[in-house]
Amino acid sequence: MDTTLTTWVAKEQQRLLTDLTAWLGIPSISTQPEHKADCRRAHAWIAERLAGLGFRTETIETEGHPMLWAVGPEVPEAPTVLCYGHYDVQPPDPLSEWVSPPFVPTVRGGNLYARGTADDKGQVFCVVASIEALLKTRGRLPVNMRFLIEGEEEVGSGGLTKFLTAQPDRTKADAVLVPDVNMVAPGWPSVDAGLRGLVSAEIHLRTLKKDLHSGIYGGAAPNALETLFHLLERLKGPDGHINIPGLYTRVKKPTAKELKAWKALPIKEAAFRKEAGAKALTGERQFSFLERVWSRPTFEIHGIVGGYIGAGSKTVIPAEATAKVTLRLVPDQRGKEVAALLVKAVKKLAPKYADVTVTIHAYGDPVMTPLDSKPYALLDRACREIWTRGIAPIRSGGSIPIVPLLRQRKAPVLCAGIGLPDDGLHGPNEKLTLDQLWKGIRLFARWLELMGAS
Amino acid sequence: MDTTLTTWVAKEQQRLLTDLTAWLGIPSISTQPEHKADCRRAHAWIAERLAGLGFRTETIETEGHPMLWAVGPEVPEAPTVLCYGHYDVQPPDPLSEWVSPPFVPTVRGGNLYARGTADDKGQVFCVVASIEALLKTRGRLPVNMRFLIEGEEEVGSGGLTKFLTAQPDRTKADAVLVPDVNMVAPGWPSVDAGLRGLVSAEIHLRTLKKDLHSGIYGGAAPNALETLFHLLERLKGPDGHINIPGLYTRVKKPTAKELKAWKALPIKEAAFRKEAGAKALTGERQFSFLERVWSRPTFEIHGIVGGYIGAGSKTVIPAEATAKVTLRLVPDQRGKEVAALLVKAVKKLAPKYADVTVTIHAYGDPVMTPLDSKPYALLDRACREIWTRGIAPIRSGGSIPIVPLLRQRKAPVLCAGIGLPDDGLHGPNEKLTLDQLWKGIRLFARWLELMGAS
Repeated sequence: MDTTLTTWVAKEQQRLLTDLTAWLGIPSISTQPEHKADCRRAHAWIAERLAGLGFRTETIETEGHPMLWAVGPEVPEAPTVLCYGHYDVQPPDPLSEWVSPPFVPTVRGGNLYARGTADDKGQVFCVVASIEALLKTRGRLPVNMRFLIEGEEEVGSGGLTKFLTAQPDRTKADAVLVPDVNMVAPGWPSVDAGLRGLVSAEIHLRTLKKDLHSGIYGGAAPNALETLFHLLERLKGPDGHINIPGLYTRVKKPTAKELKAWKALPIKEAAFRKEAGAKALTGERQFSFLERVWSRPTFEIHGIVGGYIGAGSKTVIPAEATAKVTLRLVPDQRGKEVAALLVKAVKKLAPKYADVTVTIHAYGDPVMTPLDSKPYALLDRACREIWTRGIAPIRSGGSIPIVPLLRQRKAPVLCAGIGLPDDGLHGPNEKLTLDQLWKGIRLFARWLELMGAS
Repeated sequence: MDTTLTTWVAKEQQRLLTDLTAWLGIPSISTQPEHKADCRRAHAWIAERLAGLGFRTETIETEGHPMLWAVGPEVPEAPTVLCYGHYDVQPPDPLSEWVSPPFVPTVRGGNLYARGTADDKGQVFCVVASIEALLKTRGRLPVNMRFLIEGEEEVGSGGLTKFLTAQPDRTKADAVLVPDVNMVAPGWPSVDAGLRGLVSAEIHLRTLKKDLHSGIYGGAAPNALETLFHLLERLKGPDGHINIPGLYTRVKKPTAKELKAWKALPIKEAAFRKEAGAKALTGERQFSFLERVWSRPTFEIHGIVGGYIGAGSKTVIPAEATAKVTLRLVPDQRGKEVAALLVKAVKKLAPKYADVTVTIHAYGDPVMTPLDSKPYALLDRACREIWTRGIAPIRSGGSIPIVPLLRQRKAPVLCAGIGLPDDGLHGPNEKLTLDQLWKGIRLFARWLELMGAS
């Protein structure tokens, strides 16, 4: 067995870690306007790195944060591989729960902790490092490599959508690698065959012209927060069923084969519950927990704006309140259609004394990708070499807006990453396990080599 | 008719307004630790003013913000009158709804806008100005005057409670004036015969060890915000009934005489609804709106902490959530007892998978004060002179912690202020109508004169 790659990775670990730390230190939070400059800095960082590896880089401006298009040295007659990723990250709230600051990357117990380690800078860095490994150990790349790295994945990929619609040829490739996912379990490499779609919205209610004193009006004046809860309770009760008429019409049941494969996975309800840090799982109990997170639509409330949330108390009847919500969608639901159904349901369920508005921030369709392609088979082979186990075909509850766009173009997408289920994406103490990173560099280098030789 | 007072007030208006503006400009928000120094400044301001009128002032330290005790020049054989007030104010949120900044007092259309104009600096200032008016026009005071002005009224009056328990003699007086209330309608002077009590609490729920990614766990992991809403919905549904076992046991129905008097008031449901800025009133519809706000207990949600409330979206399943709530109590409920009932009900209604804690911030009993005293009769006479109408005996939905403390000592309390129902207490654009202030100075001066002559 060729150990050149293994040796190179072992030798370069410290430097690679230092490099990645610099990128993670930039708080490129795409949803917060005050981090606009940080997003540009994070874009410049990865552009410079790829330029250093001989890539021709191009900054593509959007209405939000810029994208990076990077084209590797031409390799005549070799296949073309496109890697998609994003440099933007989620906000780090709640800050107080981070053991080390979210933008001061810190190694503890074999893990690197920082916002963006797993989602998605660490994984993009892993693929870029595999390119570096190939250049340093082989002197050349085995494929025509391209990178498309955006800065709006966490806010709906608006710029990317426009770009791909205007320039569909950019995604022409023999394989598209999307390493923005995790393995189903340690030691179990996996490919996400299905990804949920997303509708992101804000429900705003106004019941009064202005906030009122609860002593003077309490008992008679409509409280906007309470009215909002009554509405949310009607939209989704404790049984997990979502009361949006028409929502479940297009929901496709997983095949018997899929359900059987899911049962064989080394991921059991008790362990999933423990990993979630919950005393019990909730939701539609008539479905298994994997069906609930992989093949059922969901409705989640992420935050409530309104009233008084400072220190101490303020005896006010809030005049308005807003709920930040998302729906996750499954095949064959359609994002646009569900957004309209949500608006209709909210308008119908809200009491007449409340002025209600629903703002749709973003929507994306759920998607399935085929598992019978040559790139899939070669990745399976590389996985067997590195992890001594082939790919487990799973689904993901998450959403990556580019994937449905690529699938519309029949691109051979492979959603395969080296994260682990306990990486804590979007929450405090997000991490990347360093052993996964080092193995991942070898995995992607090996896969690209197999692609080039095919 | 003696017009000396009227002339003096007319001549001094501009200066008095400038003086009051200086006091209102100090953001003495007692509930926010960052305003601790401002509270002390607001205390010093009113102490200095009373000292300038010949009062002996004493600063009484508490664990929170200091109180002021001020004793006027001795007037042998005259009755003693104590005026209670507070210099602390509610937070000004939501800031964006203020037409002029909350701590930059601004006159518009005959009203003075600022936090604390009506609740309670403006009203305390009115009584102090009446003292000044008497000194300047009569050369002496007609009564032995005392002021007790605290800085913790908006956070439960903890220091005051301890002080009055340790030194009960301080409240010995022939009348105690509490001008921390408003008139029932323009042109209708009133005395609050009943005040609701208060239980202020935070309900905190934890369902997960940490926030989770809604893509990975959505549909199976318990969302703390949703769990909190389910709980709140069980505590109080859209019908306004509060599901706390035992809560209504001690609730006393108003007498037939009271209910009749309330019907005669110039305050009708449609106008009250309009003034509240609501399309409809809510709550227990089997009771009239005045019964709901004056004689029924209430449960209000003031704010929800938890999840993501920054700009844009964050697809997180929150691990914990907190509701800031208060209950308003009516005769003969007991604050301490209701606090215990709330804790018990929450623990019982919360699902087993959630860790729930209830923190009681403060509680105070509801109270009734008698309307057959000599000070009441003299105030009624002064009102007829200034407003050409006697006192309307009403109740108030608000709570003033000192009143039950005084009532326990059988002190002859008169809750009578010069605010108006639309002053916007605790909300944005709080105001004091200047004509009320000028009339109020004459009213209190006249009443003190009548007290002294009695």
